[in-house]
Amino acid sequence: MTDFHTALGKNNANYQPLTPIDFLIRSAQVYPEQTAIIYDDLTHPALTQTWRETYTRCRQLADGLRQLGIDKNDTVAVMLPNTPAMVECAFGVPMSGAVLCTLNTRMDINALSFCLQHAEAKVLILDSEFADYVDLLTETFPQLMIIQATDAAIETDDFGQMSYEALVGSATDLDNWELPQDEWDAIALNYTSGTTGKPKGVVYHHRGATLNALSNILDWDMPKHPIYLWTLPLFHCNGWCFPWSIAERAGVNVCLRKIDADTILRLIAKYGVTHYCAAPVVHSIIASGDQALKDAISHPVKGWVAGAPPSETMLSNMEAMGFHITHVYGLTEVYGPVTVCAEHPDWAELSTAERAQKKSRQGMVSHLMAGFEVFQQGTSNPVASDGEEVGELALRGNLVMKGYLKNRKATEAAFADGWFRTGDLGVKQPDGYIKIMDRLKDVIISGGENISSIEVENTLYALPAVQSCAVVAAPDDKWGEVPVAFIELHQGAQLTRDEVKAHCRAHLAGFKVPKHIVFATIPKTSTGKVQKFELRQAAKSIDYAAETGA
Amino acid sequence: MTDFHTALGKNNANYQPLTPIDFLIRSAQVYPEQTAIIYDDLTHPALTQTWRETYTRCRQLADGLRQLGIDKNDTVAVMLPNTPAMVECAFGVPMSGAVLCTLNTRMDINALSFCLQHAEAKVLILDSEFADYVDLLTETFPQLMIIQATDAAIETDDFGQMSYEALVGSATDLDNWELPQDEWDAIALNYTSGTTGKPKGVVYHHRGATLNALSNILDWDMPKHPIYLWTLPLFHCNGWCFPWSIAERAGVNVCLRKIDADTILRLIAKYGVTHYCAAPVVHSIIASGDQALKDAISHPVKGWVAGAPPSETMLSNMEAMGFHITHVYGLTEVYGPVTVCAEHPDWAELSTAERAQKKSRQGMVSHLMAGFEVFQQGTSNPVASDGEEVGELALRGNLVMKGYLKNRKATEAAFADGWFRTGDLGVKQPDGYIKIMDRLKDVIISGGENISSIEVENTLYALPAVQSCAVVAAPDDKWGEVPVAFIELHQGAQLTRDEVKAHCRAHLAGFKVPKHIVFATIPKTSTGKVQKFELRQAAKSIDYAAETGA
Repeated sequence: MTDFHTALGKNNANYQPLTPIDFLIRSAQVYPEQTAIIYDDLTHPALTQTWRETYTRCRQLADGLRQLGIDKNDTVAVMLPNTPAMVECAFGVPMSGAVLCTLNTRMDINALSFCLQHAEAKVLILDSEFADYVDLLTETFPQLMIIQATDAAIETDDFGQMSYEALVGSATDLDNWELPQDEWDAIALNYTSGTTGKPKGVVYHHRGATLNALSNILDWDMPKHPIYLWTLPLFHCNGWCFPWSIAERAGVNVCLRKIDADTILRLIAKYGVTHYCAAPVVHSIIASGDQALKDAISHPVKGWVAGAPPSETMLSNMEAMGFHITHVYGLTEVYGPVTVCAEHPDWAELSTAERAQKKSRQGMVSHLMAGFEVFQQGTSNPVASDGEEVGELALRGNLVMKGYLKNRKATEAAFADGWFRTGDLGVKQPDGYIKIMDRLKDVIISGGENISSIEVENTLYALPAVQSCAVVAAPDDKWGEVPVAFIELHQGAQLTRDEVKAHCRAHLAGFKVPKHIVFATIPKTSTGKVQKFELRQAAKSIDYAAETGA
Repeated sequence: MTDFHTALGKNNANYQPLTPIDFLIRSAQVYPEQTAIIYDDLTHPALTQTWRETYTRCRQLADGLRQLGIDKNDTVAVMLPNTPAMVECAFGVPMSGAVLCTLNTRMDINALSFCLQHAEAKVLILDSEFADYVDLLTETFPQLMIIQATDAAIETDDFGQMSYEALVGSATDLDNWELPQDEWDAIALNYTSGTTGKPKGVVYHHRGATLNALSNILDWDMPKHPIYLWTLPLFHCNGWCFPWSIAERAGVNVCLRKIDADTILRLIAKYGVTHYCAAPVVHSIIASGDQALKDAISHPVKGWVAGAPPSETMLSNMEAMGFHITHVYGLTEVYGPVTVCAEHPDWAELSTAERAQKKSRQGMVSHLMAGFEVFQQGTSNPVASDGEEVGELALRGNLVMKGYLKNRKATEAAFADGWFRTGDLGVKQPDGYIKIMDRLKDVIISGGENISSIEVENTLYALPAVQSCAVVAAPDDKWGEVPVAFIELHQGAQLTRDEVKAHCRAHLAGFKVPKHIVFATIPKTSTGKVQKFELRQAAKSIDYAAETGA
């Protein structure tokens, strides 16, 4: 054994904690005049900002926060749409030493209050869109400093201690910021949607944020200077870490206040957008946009889809538009995407439908994630790679969260046996690719048989009239549970219950055919996840006796 | 302050030491049937090997080494050209727990013996090309286990304990290997060329190897499945960490036993090579290859140049061939390249000569390197960004070595003030790009004025007859030192001393014009670095009185 240790330790010359803040610094240094941010609502004059300017503004933001008394490991919360301020906060807040807590903009006041209190937020940067919350927040949290973020697109009265621009403008010392001392230091706090309980605060560290940002680039072969459209909420897993990926690539952040098919299509054409991410529902919205606007896009566009399993129908529709879609999968607990349905060259020879089937799988572990496995439920035994045996997907590696804030019990449960259990059920196919069959809690057990709600939903999505659907369990005296399908139709489209049932009978085993069909608006979270909890409640109380075939 | 630490530590689910071995595992898992290695000398049948096979063979190699008694932190030395065995050793040796010591194949027996002894090597994997060393090594190191690596391209008698294939074939347990327990664990040991003293053993760790491999990909926008030709010696900084980069990208390693223009051009055309790295001299050799072979290459080819500052002439020649060349810079102490002359979109509008001038600079810090600076010599004061003030380039960050093996003094000196001092002198230009003017020890001081040997050499390279040149100091009674130019001409080319001097006088200040011109073969290290130490010795003893103008 040779001594490869003595006098070969870490020092300032040969070790530095990993942090995505470095990406901002380098792009400002190497590509100072390249565009970093564009904000254009197609009504007001567009804002554009270079990497040099963005780096300056982020340092100003850090100094401004410190002047407000913000210190290491204080929580700075933000409730912002995908505006330039939201992009800047991904850097400026951690540069102040604080931890960035991005709040879901569709939270109700109760959830919002819970998160602010649990996170011990000292500052809240609030977009003018949410002015209605101010009075109640001021009353509930008299110590909370509220900063108003606003722009020409929103009309409102002034509120809070000062405006975001005044905060940035208050900076006097561009060197009053810091890199983390330890790459395990927290960078962000992201609350789970908490549909079945109190939200849990997922803590990210600088190391994980850096590595997930890199993994995104590697998975996507993303070259320098991408034009990235912010269709994905930045409050969701810090935009799957893409603010940091785009900074690494010295790309352009094309901001977007709200989802609207025509605006998205116009921005893609106007700025030559090359990349975007979104939940399946947003892809479907884009696909349903104006044909002339779609025809105006002639350059290659790549999209990632995650947040819910995409239907083969959606994947085929996007391919028909000429967009190249990749399916990734992840959770708040793993910084966003950590598996990728990596394409193989020979898939190019398949039909659109066959390729969509391949792509509808969650795939393989992404580039900088260490491990994934599908375990027989409640055991440490992997399922067979036969595409049949269902188990729970487990993950481990550097892209798994630090843990849940102030929740030792939940953290220990999540990491019980050296794996993070996702709560998602799936199979491993013979090529090793995984396919999620259902959330553990969404499986329907009917007459002793497991029914994957996702399988039934994807069958329904093959009906062109279906815009959105969800299948949940309803209690049944005879079968224990039966599947109930909630279906939302495209505007003006027609479909009868009998047509739905006939279609399902043609494509599914009899016990999987929904017993009841309900035409209704599907409740979704802001990230496009169907709120099955609500539908299960609804499914219990519907008067099915009134159901007809039409 | 919120408590972002308690019960939020590292565990097996959320932390794994960074290691490039993961890249091999993932590519074997996701792209098992894709080609990993091609070895084709254009005479014998070509070998091709998939990522699945390569992963299997690397595990076999690890088990084989362990069966020989190799354990954690033992040194396994290899002296191999760029053959498949050399690619496999980049993984299989560290998977056994050992540290890989890749020896320069042009080392003489004295240097070789020094390194084997200093490294405490237990095993030496030796290519049949170096059979001549075996008797002496066996005598000097009776405990050293010698493994013979051979292939159809080399005819030799058997030597050593066993063949490399027998070692791989001896494996019985494919699970008998390991990932590092700590990312700071040593992965490789690379000896400096030691032109001015004993070679120093530079120790690399898993973290640095991983991050440099990623930095290569990011700098080069390298997409998945590159076809990478091994023109760069794999023994030099572990091939600048590219075996690991190519594994990450699930690319193809096109092996190459020796540098030969026609073979290189044929392989580029035959396999559609997309990427290669080489010292300037190898690029020049390629450029001087057969025109018909060059014309047969119609696909895009990208090359990196480093190892010595490339002349603008060479850069222009490669561009004329249609190859896209990027200039990077590094040292053994920093895992290979750590600065990159990052191109800007507007350079496309420049003339070839203007672009070559831009590209001849060493550029900016590369993607995952933290910091670089040019300091006034012997101080911690940065030079001005004026392209004039000369200082010493210093580096720091995660791509800096662990230190020098068993050499506390040299390690401490190298890291004295939290920076690794490179010994290279350069300037910072107004855009922040650095340009190396000379090695600290190569500067010529004539009449109190500093002369950059590189500036004079680049002036000489503009003469089409010059294939290679080097300018060094010779002692002079009047001026202290004067510049002497050694020039090697292209085969059949003609050039007189008077022509050289006239050219220099037209392009350089008078004191920089070489006082003496010597036509000679330029001695180079295997990595293309001119051995100025030898030339300085020669310059002292030449009888300049015999010099004529012709």
